[in-house]
Amino acid sequence: MIDVIIIGTGNVSFHFSKVISNRNGLRLIGIYGRGRNIPDYFNKNISYSNDLKKIKYADIYLICVSDDAIGIVSDQLNVSEKSIVVHSSGSINISYLSKHKKHGVLYPLQTFSYNREVNFSSIPIIIEANTNLVLDKIKEISNLISNEIIECDSQKRLSVHISAVFANNFSNHMNVIAEEILKINNIDSDILKPLIHETSKKIQFLKSKEAQTGPAIRNDQITIKKHLNLLKQTKYFDIYKTLTEEIIKSKNEL
Amino acid sequence: MIDVIIIGTGNVSFHFSKVISNRNGLRLIGIYGRGRNIPDYFNKNISYSNDLKKIKYADIYLICVSDDAIGIVSDQLNVSEKSIVVHSSGSINISYLSKHKKHGVLYPLQTFSYNREVNFSSIPIIIEANTNLVLDKIKEISNLISNEIIECDSQKRLSVHISAVFANNFSNHMNVIAEEILKINNIDSDILKPLIHETSKKIQFLKSKEAQTGPAIRNDQITIKKHLNLLKQTKYFDIYKTLTEEIIKSKNEL
Repeated sequence: MIDVIIIGTGNVSFHFSKVISNRNGLRLIGIYGRGRNIPDYFNKNISYSNDLKKIKYADIYLICVSDDAIGIVSDQLNVSEKSIVVHSSGSINISYLSKHKKHGVLYPLQTFSYNREVNFSSIPIIIEANTNLVLDKIKEISNLISNEIIECDSQKRLSVHISAVFANNFSNHMNVIAEEILKINNIDSDILKPLIHETSKKIQFLKSKEAQTGPAIRNDQITIKKHLNLLKQTKYFDIYKTLTEEIIKSKNEL
Repeated sequence: MIDVIIIGTGNVSFHFSKVISNRNGLRLIGIYGRGRNIPDYFNKNISYSNDLKKIKYADIYLICVSDDAIGIVSDQLNVSEKSIVVHSSGSINISYLSKHKKHGVLYPLQTFSYNREVNFSSIPIIIEANTNLVLDKIKEISNLISNEIIECDSQKRLSVHISAVFANNFSNHMNVIAEEILKINNIDSDILKPLIHETSKKIQFLKSKEAQTGPAIRNDQITIKKHLNLLKQTKYFDIYKTLTEEIIKSKNEL
């Protein structure tokens, strides 16, 4: 049995607390947070502390705090040399944890919201460690959580994180704009749901480049001009123009 | 029974031919195309013609050709005054069909690929007609195909089409870039699939603005700088910067 303490009480901590509590071989023995009490959304039976100095022994400490706090928390944390300290961030170098004899990274490639259940088994987990022995242990733990484990150094993990920003954050922002354009036209933005659903479903089977459709990939200048004309004097004009040019360019690179 | 002839043999025609053949109340009595034979992917039992001048009588002619050919095809088409001629495009004005006494639009808001089955019942259909009587008939037909019918004039439909470009084409291009970044780093781009799937699933429950996560919406300048630093001298730098600034701006507009 591997005993885990999670440090942090945000979104990622919340989802890890649920999966760690539910997996054979893992035991969540505590959560550390800054608040007086554990936030309401957590299971109330989890042992909670807000005193980092009195933190209990665990086999692994999983730091799930905001990126700018990881170094600070790590520096304040004093753990046994037998314990492993990992963080779960996509963009923080493993060296931020170098104070600890055994340290590493366990970064789940997913977007988390409190009110959305996630299936951890299919979430790729990107791992890194300061020694091969620690890596084996982090692998063992990750394998209890997910079926998809990828080993990466910090630099490569940063690239994975950037790709996630495109595939999730930027892609979602395209939907934000789409919804806004409909709203301006008094059209219920729910009508986009089947399209957005199909957009993601398609690329479970096709490479996204093969899935591309629309006026830009066809270099259909008549439609593009019509669209730009309608977007003129809106804040969407530049972004439409830039992305259309990008798609046309990317086609020529095929 | 409403008799339908489809003009065109592309992707949209193909999907319409399947749904029209399968719906009670509709009968696909023919397809017109430019080629000598009907393309292989169509059901071979469908009556096919490549002579527009000898086109049979139908209650409705559904033009599914590329946008730049709609006007040309419409001008060449001579049909009974009792028949309705519609096109299925998002961005072509209804006036392109004004030669015909009864005319309109039946635009399905979806992305189509030959190798992907689509469920037409949930695809919003945007309709328009030159008279109320024609509109009623187009509504009747659309209701046999889908549960979601929206009436729009040509200008509004163009806005819907632009929103679809953002929600599908541009959003998909974000996935293209994400896959490319992983490829450059020798990482299998399949690891993005769960993230992309969740990105679209989330907004079946949340407005996309509420679903936004990541460094831009948090205005996390440290991570943003790290990402930009890694993207420096790549073609992704500008687009990352522009979209990040857009997301930060859009947050301030909340």
